[in-house]
Amino acid sequence: MFFDSHVHTEGLGISELKKMKESGIEKVCSLSFYPIKPYFPQTLIDGFRKLEEFESRRCEILGIQMFPGVGIHPRCIPPNYMTVVEHLEAGEWVLFGELGIEKANEEEREVFVSQIRVAMKKDIPCVIHTPRENKRIITSKILEILENISFPPELAVVDHVNFENLDLVFEKNYWIGLTVQSGKLSPQEVVKIVKEYGSDRFLVNSDSGYRNEFLNAVAETAKILENEAKKVCLRNAERFLGV
Amino acid sequence: MFFDSHVHTEGLGISELKKMKESGIEKVCSLSFYPIKPYFPQTLIDGFRKLEEFESRRCEILGIQMFPGVGIHPRCIPPNYMTVVEHLEAGEWVLFGELGIEKANEEEREVFVSQIRVAMKKDIPCVIHTPRENKRIITSKILEILENISFPPELAVVDHVNFENLDLVFEKNYWIGLTVQSGKLSPQEVVKIVKEYGSDRFLVNSDSGYRNEFLNAVAETAKILENEAKKVCLRNAERFLGV
Repeated sequence: MFFDSHVHTEGLGISELKKMKESGIEKVCSLSFYPIKPYFPQTLIDGFRKLEEFESRRCEILGIQMFPGVGIHPRCIPPNYMTVVEHLEAGEWVLFGELGIEKANEEEREVFVSQIRVAMKKDIPCVIHTPRENKRIITSKILEILENISFPPELAVVDHVNFENLDLVFEKNYWIGLTVQSGKLSPQEVVKIVKEYGSDRFLVNSDSGYRNEFLNAVAETAKILENEAKKVCLRNAERFLGV
Repeated sequence: MFFDSHVHTEGLGISELKKMKESGIEKVCSLSFYPIKPYFPQTLIDGFRKLEEFESRRCEILGIQMFPGVGIHPRCIPPNYMTVVEHLEAGEWVLFGELGIEKANEEEREVFVSQIRVAMKKDIPCVIHTPRENKRIITSKILEILENISFPPELAVVDHVNFENLDLVFEKNYWIGLTVQSGKLSPQEVVKIVKEYGSDRFLVNSDSGYRNEFLNAVAETAKILENEAKKVCLRNAERFLGV
């Protein structure tokens, strides 16, 4: 039994979810992402309901326990985004994500900071995206922001970590997300990282959805991780979520 | 080359769209449907953009030409739905759908009528859903509404037609949608209908998306339709859309 800690079930069809389940994935975090820049904050608010009500049910029917992650992804910040942040502040949530920074402009920083402040106040774990472009520089900025507000390290996964930013994140105490997909990490690279840095703080995920098809990435990685698989492909994600 | 005239690409993963393409589907109508009742009309308005900008691009990359259908499905009527209708009135569209009636309450009728009035004014083809429950009675109501406003028959597909309501729709002049999926029609039943009623007014579709997995329904039906396939699995849909 494995846990894929970062997927977007909204971009996956039913036969793909079945394939994930058949590969051994029994738990997933399904994170908010809207594939265009929305014109209205309301779109995201309804999107969170869609994730919580419809997507979780779709997973449940297939035997996958789904933990919905809500929040504003840096690539889909709507106008009047504080409407969304206030909605997050007013509600009950199990997880925030994807949050993060893509280009590090002022708006992205404000959106990120306002959301992690809510997470701190309400004790909600956060999945934090790091971008493809300028990964090392942007990761430094993310870590600086987290430290500036003394964000509790156990509540954050810094995600999509690879050889470009691994040292930066490893010297702090956050959880570290390793994404196995074409253009990110291979299962073999995950094994290399885990052998070198230990298995205590890593969570493996596929980031499946919309475009990415490596649905059994976590299961394939678990196979070659051997003894470490249980921690980095299941237990660490459960500890992060407190479940 | 086939045309699946009723799908919801938003509920399909990339490997499923590929499978459709491999079965011979090169054109689809991807219709609006929000899988929960939205709290905000803005959610649908952004959803139409998502369909036009993101989903059509996702199909295009795979070699599928996608015609986006916009509008309010009777199962997802938001509060202040006139905001959506006004948006439809103000914009440029290739297709409306799914419109229709599910239970025939006052609100559904109003939403349906206000949308088909816009369609008439702007000369936009409409895909009109008929429900599973009380199909015959609701179909009568739909036909009555269309006739009351003298809706141009060539602009409407009455969809999900089966043996319960076929005679009612056939005696009018609308296009007739035959949906091949578990619980609706089998490919063999489509063949039976086409042999009996002729191939001039039928459009075959799969209604794929979210839950339905019979992705190559149109291609499978085309195989056994033989000579009639070109019309009911391609040309009629093109004529309906005027492409």
